[in-house]
Amino acid sequence: MSLDGFYAGRQHRGEAADWMESAEAAGFFRVTRWVIDAMAWRERQGFAGGEQNVSSDVIAETFEAAGAYVMGRRMADGGEVPWGDEPPFRAPVFVVTNRPRETLVRQGGTSFTYVTDGIASAVEQARAAAGGKDVAVAGGGSLLRQVIKAGLLDELELHIVPAVLGTGMRLLDADLDLAEKEAIELTPTRVIHTPEVTHIRYTVNGRAALVLDDRGRGTDAP
Amino acid sequence: MSLDGFYAGRQHRGEAADWMESAEAAGFFRVTRWVIDAMAWRERQGFAGGEQNVSSDVIAETFEAAGAYVMGRRMADGGEVPWGDEPPFRAPVFVVTNRPRETLVRQGGTSFTYVTDGIASAVEQARAAAGGKDVAVAGGGSLLRQVIKAGLLDELELHIVPAVLGTGMRLLDADLDLAEKEAIELTPTRVIHTPEVTHIRYTVNGRAALVLDDRGRGTDAP
Repeated sequence: MSLDGFYAGRQHRGEAADWMESAEAAGFFRVTRWVIDAMAWRERQGFAGGEQNVSSDVIAETFEAAGAYVMGRRMADGGEVPWGDEPPFRAPVFVVTNRPRETLVRQGGTSFTYVTDGIASAVEQARAAAGGKDVAVAGGGSLLRQVIKAGLLDELELHIVPAVLGTGMRLLDADLDLAEKEAIELTPTRVIHTPEVTHIRYTVNGRAALVLDDRGRGTDAP
Repeated sequence: MSLDGFYAGRQHRGEAADWMESAEAAGFFRVTRWVIDAMAWRERQGFAGGEQNVSSDVIAETFEAAGAYVMGRRMADGGEVPWGDEPPFRAPVFVVTNRPRETLVRQGGTSFTYVTDGIASAVEQARAAAGGKDVAVAGGGSLLRQVIKAGLLDELELHIVPAVLGTGMRLLDADLDLAEKEAIELTPTRVIHTPEVTHIRYTVNGRAALVLDDRGRGTDAP
């Protein structure tokens, strides 16, 4: 996400064919530029070249750790054509949607199974398919927030890109059903730092009430 | 700020006396807990104890680098009583406000000068008073964004706290006057990582147009 929390520009609501010229795409391209430059991503896409650096290692590690994916319907629709016959996942993908559809089997180990009975079911099916490996939340933002809201996210890896977009599609948006004076608490467990992106991995501890403190005045009083 | 970009909870609009019980305070206390625990901050407040750790070093370094401060009116009003006779700044503070007021001289080197002719003037006066040291933006968020919007911020040090608040006062909010497909670009120059907070220092490069790329397809074509 950008420094101000966006993973894409302002949402495109026009024709799909015009997406590439949209503000959404411009923001998305900026935030994912480090991915496109990375050898590990390019290899999965069948593209030559790219940089072999720590960010590429982070991508490779994430792909390797994932035994299955859950994905939102909008992301699955948007990716269907560009990902082509051999999508980069190489594992079963469970798409949360309201529209029933036959499982789509692609080359290289990727399949798309359309789950119509909710996020918990999709995660459960992915867990069963993952063979003991991680279930990765592929995206988009709305699906990630549903997973967080349902208390199903164990780990969050944020990739913070040094740009401020001002507006756009927000990754951690307000639809998490947090109560007044309630937060979701996490613990950072790893930070990898490059000029292009800062990777921070968090363990998700769960919801907790926000408490006041004495602002230091009384802590050491006798 | 929190992981979702807030430096305080939902803004308190009632009586000042009720602030401590507000959602704004609850969020602010969470986001600044690491500060309250740090020895360098406690020493500036005249409190005993605290932790001598890298976050405390970051605070000490920031205080020492600042030869003068600019501050928003709401922060100055809110701090006037709790900061007491010897505020923690120990340097001239220039408060951007619409209400003229005599300069307030406190003990320990802190003074509050009320600037009514805008942010650029406040920064210029602070620069002159800083004796070659940094001019620090004390806050709050609205003032920080005015400084960014005016192109006057050279460096940004973000302190990212591992909590999601869901709602509140947003540090990098939408009032930066960014055009469609325009971003403010930065370069991270230092990351310091603790379980309680991640400190990321950025150089602000300025505004730049967002450009599309070919998503890797053509880069290495012969």
